[in-house]
Amino acid sequence: MSETCKVTFVPDEIAVEVSPGTTILAALKEARIQVNSLCGGDGVCGRCGVIVREGKAAGGSTEFFTREEIRQGHILACEGRIEADLVVEVPSETRLGGLADRAGAEVPELTDVSHLARRGLALAPLVRKTYLELPPPSLEDNQSDLQRLEHALGRAIDTEGFQMGLKVTRRLPVVVREGDWKVTAVTSYRGPLTEIADVEPGDTTKRNMCVVVDIGTTTVVCHLVDLCDGQTLGRAGKYNSQAAYGADIIRRIIHASQSPQGQDGLRRAILNDINELIGELLTRYRLSPHDVTLISAAGNTAMIHLLLGLPAENVRKEPYVGAAYALPPMRAAEVGLHIHPRGLLYCLPCVAGFVGADIVAGIYASGMAAGEEVRMLIDIGTNGEIVIGNRDFLMCASASAGPAFEGAECSGGMHAAAGAIDHIKLLSPERVLSCSTIGSAPPVGICGTGYVDLIAEMLKVGVIDKTGRIHPDVAPSRVRQADSEEAEYVVVSGDQAGGGRDITITQGDVNNILRAKGAIYAAQRVLLDALDLGPDDVAEIMVAGAFGNFLNIENAVRIGLLPDVDADRMRFVGNTSLAGAKLAALSERCYREIFDVAARTTYFELSTAPTFMDQFVSACFFPHTDLELFPSVMAEMKAAGDS
Amino acid sequence: MSETCKVTFVPDEIAVEVSPGTTILAALKEARIQVNSLCGGDGVCGRCGVIVREGKAAGGSTEFFTREEIRQGHILACEGRIEADLVVEVPSETRLGGLADRAGAEVPELTDVSHLARRGLALAPLVRKTYLELPPPSLEDNQSDLQRLEHALGRAIDTEGFQMGLKVTRRLPVVVREGDWKVTAVTSYRGPLTEIADVEPGDTTKRNMCVVVDIGTTTVVCHLVDLCDGQTLGRAGKYNSQAAYGADIIRRIIHASQSPQGQDGLRRAILNDINELIGELLTRYRLSPHDVTLISAAGNTAMIHLLLGLPAENVRKEPYVGAAYALPPMRAAEVGLHIHPRGLLYCLPCVAGFVGADIVAGIYASGMAAGEEVRMLIDIGTNGEIVIGNRDFLMCASASAGPAFEGAECSGGMHAAAGAIDHIKLLSPERVLSCSTIGSAPPVGICGTGYVDLIAEMLKVGVIDKTGRIHPDVAPSRVRQADSEEAEYVVVSGDQAGGGRDITITQGDVNNILRAKGAIYAAQRVLLDALDLGPDDVAEIMVAGAFGNFLNIENAVRIGLLPDVDADRMRFVGNTSLAGAKLAALSERCYREIFDVAARTTYFELSTAPTFMDQFVSACFFPHTDLELFPSVMAEMKAAGDS
Repeated sequence: MSETCKVTFVPDEIAVEVSPGTTILAALKEARIQVNSLCGGDGVCGRCGVIVREGKAAGGSTEFFTREEIRQGHILACEGRIEADLVVEVPSETRLGGLADRAGAEVPELTDVSHLARRGLALAPLVRKTYLELPPPSLEDNQSDLQRLEHALGRAIDTEGFQMGLKVTRRLPVVVREGDWKVTAVTSYRGPLTEIADVEPGDTTKRNMCVVVDIGTTTVVCHLVDLCDGQTLGRAGKYNSQAAYGADIIRRIIHASQSPQGQDGLRRAILNDINELIGELLTRYRLSPHDVTLISAAGNTAMIHLLLGLPAENVRKEPYVGAAYALPPMRAAEVGLHIHPRGLLYCLPCVAGFVGADIVAGIYASGMAAGEEVRMLIDIGTNGEIVIGNRDFLMCASASAGPAFEGAECSGGMHAAAGAIDHIKLLSPERVLSCSTIGSAPPVGICGTGYVDLIAEMLKVGVIDKTGRIHPDVAPSRVRQADSEEAEYVVVSGDQAGGGRDITITQGDVNNILRAKGAIYAAQRVLLDALDLGPDDVAEIMVAGAFGNFLNIENAVRIGLLPDVDADRMRFVGNTSLAGAKLAALSERCYREIFDVAARTTYFELSTAPTFMDQFVSACFFPHTDLELFPSVMAEMKAAGDS
Repeated sequence: MSETCKVTFVPDEIAVEVSPGTTILAALKEARIQVNSLCGGDGVCGRCGVIVREGKAAGGSTEFFTREEIRQGHILACEGRIEADLVVEVPSETRLGGLADRAGAEVPELTDVSHLARRGLALAPLVRKTYLELPPPSLEDNQSDLQRLEHALGRAIDTEGFQMGLKVTRRLPVVVREGDWKVTAVTSYRGPLTEIADVEPGDTTKRNMCVVVDIGTTTVVCHLVDLCDGQTLGRAGKYNSQAAYGADIIRRIIHASQSPQGQDGLRRAILNDINELIGELLTRYRLSPHDVTLISAAGNTAMIHLLLGLPAENVRKEPYVGAAYALPPMRAAEVGLHIHPRGLLYCLPCVAGFVGADIVAGIYASGMAAGEEVRMLIDIGTNGEIVIGNRDFLMCASASAGPAFEGAECSGGMHAAAGAIDHIKLLSPERVLSCSTIGSAPPVGICGTGYVDLIAEMLKVGVIDKTGRIHPDVAPSRVRQADSEEAEYVVVSGDQAGGGRDITITQGDVNNILRAKGAIYAAQRVLLDALDLGPDDVAEIMVAGAFGNFLNIENAVRIGLLPDVDADRMRFVGNTSLAGAKLAALSERCYREIFDVAARTTYFELSTAPTFMDQFVSACFFPHTDLELFPSVMAEMKAAGDS
C-alpha cells in the first residue's frame, strides 16, 4: 500500500493526496468542495452520495443505493474509505451551494422537529396515517364498515366528527376485506372535523411523506419531510418558470388578467415547477407519489392565487384585494399537484395583497408572535416586508423594492446560482482583495449579497459617494464612462469571468440598489413611527428571505439597508416561509396558531402613510441623510477620515 | 241563463248538472271525481288545476298559470265558476289517488311546518340562502373577498367556521363585483362547519327549493318543498325502475354484485327515476334545476347503497353489514342528481342492513323517540319493520314478509295504482257487497289493502278457515278447482274487470299473505318478549308505510296482522320516511336529532332469536293459534257462532 492515495474529483478535476483510510468526505473537505452532509458524517442522512469512477473505495453501506448503483460505484462520501488512487464524481445534487440550499436555507432551530418539543407540542401532522386492526363483523356486532372504522379511529384521533368522500366510501367495503380488517386510515385535519381521506389495506403508516413548498416570485423550493419523525429528507429548488411571463408580480398579474389562457399559462407554469420538484425528490428517495399525502405551501399572495387559479387581478389594483387569504385544505389533485390522489394541499394564510403566507409563516416560525419582547422581521426579496410586534400586537408593511436584491434588473445581476459573486472585498478603489462565488465556480454575475458587499466596499474606498454617484477619477483603471453613457465599474474583467465578458456595476445599478434599500429602510421607519417606537425598543431584528445566512450584516448596515444596532440584536432566520410551512405540516396546533397569527396581523398600507415619501427620500443616501441614525457607520467614517 | 248548466268531465265522460255559479270543484265532487285540494278550495294551493275545453268558466286568478295557459282554458277548479255548459278536462296530476298521493301520503300533523313549531324549532334548512350587502373594499378595509363574505355571513349564521370549495372561490371575485357587492350566499350544514356552497350575484333568496325523496323498493316518491316557508308545493311518484332487475331487494343486490355493469345499471335506474320526478316537479312549477339546492333522501339501506353506488353485496350476506349507514352531505351532482350544480344531497342514516333510513325517519317523525310512553311503529312493505321504544330506549327488528302486501307475487296482485281493488266487502260467500278501486277505475287487480279486506271478509263468511284453506263447497259459484290445481276464488269476473280477465285469489295467494302477516306479527311478539313487555304496555301502535291511511284496521286485526288493541290506541302515520326527510331538510336540529335516533336504535336480529320460528309458526293462522291474543276477534267469532 502506498503511503498516500491520490483522489481526483470530477468534473472539478481537483486532486488531493490523502493517507489511506481517509474518508472521501474528508478528502472533499481537503479539496474545498462543499457537499451536503446533514448528519455530519454518520452515514444516516444519505446526502453526500458520490460515484467512484476509477478505483474502488472500501466500506459503504447498501442502505441508500440499489444493487445496480453500487455496481456503478455509488457510495456515501462519509462511508467510503480511500485505500487506493481514485477518481470520484461529485454529482451536482450532492454539492452545497445549489439553489435549494440557498433559497431554502433552513435555520435548524426553527425547523427541526425539536422545535415542536420546545413549543411543548407533539408531532401531530395535518395528514396522519393510523393503522387499525378492526374486529370483523358478526351478527352480534353488525355495524356498517364505516361505523366500524370510525369507531376504531375515534380512539386514536380527537375530533368532533369524521367526514368521508363518496369515492372512498364506495371502495371501503372492498378495502377492509382485502386487508382482512387490518387497514391504514389516512386522515386529514379539517378544523373541528377530521376527513378520512383514504383507507388502504394493511399497514402503510411507515410511508407518510409531506412536501413543504415555498413559492417565491423568483424561486420555488420544496423540502421532502417524513411525517413519521418530522425529519427533512431532501431539498430541491428551481427558478419560477413564470418568469417567462414577467420578472415581477405585477407584470405576471397583468398577463393573467388579460385572458383565461394567460391565467392558465401562469397557473400551469408554477404547477409544473412544483410537480417537477416533487418528481425530482421522489426519484431521489425512491418514493412513489402515493407516499406523499400532504403538501404544505407558503408563498406570497399573488403566487398562491396563481397556483390555485384564483383571479389575482384585484391584488395589483387599488385597494389591492385578493380573492381569499385564509383557504381551507384542498384536494391536491384538484389543484393539479401530483401526489397521493387523495392527498391534501394546505395553504398557509395571507394577510393582504402584498403580505403573503410566506410572511405569516415567518412571523410564526421566528417566534416573534409568541414572545413578550418586541421584535422586527425583515424579509428581503422583490418586496421588502417588515413586521414589528410581539404576542400583543403584530403590524406589517410591504415596500416595493424592485428585484435588485434578487439580482434582477441590474446589468451584472444574477440569481444566487453557481458562479454568482456572493461576497467581495476591495483592498483599494482599483484592487479586489477577495471575491467568492457560489459553488466556487468562475464568476459570471453578481447576486444580492454580492451587491450589498460591493456597494459597501465601493463606499469605503470612495468609488461611490453618499448619493451613490460613481467617481471615475477615483478608480480610472476600473471605471469606464463614454461621453453620453453612464459610468460603470468593472468588478471582474472578461478574461477572468466565466462568461468571457466583463462583470460590471453601472451607475444605474447603484441607483437601483439605492432605491431598493431606501424603500425597505423607509418602511421600517414608518412602521416604527406608526407604533411610536424607536429602533432601541426593538429587542431583535430578524433577517429572512433569499439572502439566507449569506448576507454580510455589517455591510447591510453600512449601505443603510438594515438599522444600525448591535450585531447581537441582529439574527438570520433563513427561509422562514419554509420553516412555517413545515411546522404547520407537522402539527395541527401550529397550523391553527398560524391562522391566528394571520388574523392578528394588522396590515399597514404604506401608500397612504403621509410620511412614507419623506422617509424614502431621506433613505436614498448611503447610509442615510440623517447620519445620527447610523452611529457605528458615522464612527467608522470619522475614524477613516482621521486616519 | 239556463236554470242548470251541464258540465262534462273528460276523459271520464262523466256529466253532472249544477246550478249556475257552482264552482268546478263542487261539480267534481258531485261527479265523484277526487282531485287534489290541499287548501280546501281557497285558491292558494294551486293543486286543483283543470282545463276548460269547451265553454268558458267565470273567475279564476292568473297566479298559477301563464297567459298562454289561461288562453288554453287552464283554471283552478276551486276558482272557476260554472255559468254555462262546459267540457272540462281533469289532468292526471290533479286527480287524487295517483301514486304520489298513496305512496307519499302525508299525515299533515307530522310534516307541515307547524310541526317544527310544536317541537319548539325554527325553520333552519340544511341549505340556506342569505342575502348580503357587503361594504365595498377600500384602502382602509382591504380584507380579501372571501373574508369580507365570511365576515358578513358570520353575523347571520352560527357556525364554528366556513368552508368553500376551490371552484366557488375562483368565481368569487367576479361574482361579488358582478353583483356590486350585493350577493346571496348558499350555505350548507356540515356539522360544526358551514360550507359556502355557492355565491350568486343579487338577491336569489326567494328561490330556494328542496326535493324530499323516499326511495322504496317498489315506489319512489318526491315532494317539492319551498325552503323559504317549509310548504310542500307538489308531489310526484313512480315505480322504482330497478324492478326490471328483480322485484325484491335480494335479487337486485345479487344482480349488482355480479358485475360493475350490474351495479351501475341499478344505480342509473334509481338515479333516472329520481331525476325524472325532479324534472316533472320542476316543469310543473316552472322552476329551473338551479332553484333546487337540497335533496333530503330516506329509503331502505339497500336503496341508499344502490343510489350512491356503494357495494350492497354484504347487506344480503350474513352478518348483513352495509358499507356505511351514517353518511355526510354529498354534492348532488357527484351522485348524479340534477339540481343546482353545487346543491347538496343529505341522506338520512340507516341502522342496519334491513333497518334503513326510512325507518329512522319514521321513528323520528312519529315522535316516539321523544315521548315517555312506550309506542310501537309498524312499517309494512316488502319487509315489515317493527320498532318499540320511547325516549329511553329504541329497539327495532325487520321481518322478511315478502312483497304480498305490496301486491306483488300474488296472482291477482298489483301495486296501489288506478284500478286496484283497495277495499272490498262480502255480503255472503258468493256475493260482493261493495268493492272500490283506486281512481274509481274499472278493477284490474288487488292491492295490499284490498287483500287485507278480502282475507278478512272471506274468513268472516267462511270461504277460508283459520288455516287459510279455501273451501270450494262454501262458494261453489266463485271457487274453481281443477283436479290437480289449487283452488281459486273469483273476486271479479272477467266481464266486469278492466282487463277482461277474472280477478282471483288463489290458495297460494292466501298462503303468501298468511306467511307475510305471520312474519310481521311474530316479529312484534319477539320484540315485545325481548323487552319483557306485553301488548298492553304499548301506549300506541302506529302504522306506517305503503298502506298509507287506506288500511282497514279492523280487518288487519281480524287477519292477525296487527295486534288486537283498542282502536283508539292505533294510528296511521302515513309515509313517515318522507315526513322525517322533510323535517331534516327544514331544520338542522331535526337532522342532528335523526342521527341521534339512529345511534340510539338497537337492532334486534330476528334470525338469531330462538323464539322467532315458534312465534312465526303460531302466527301462521288467522288470526293466531292463540286466540286469547285476539279477544275482540274471539268475541266476534263467538257472536257470529251464537247468531
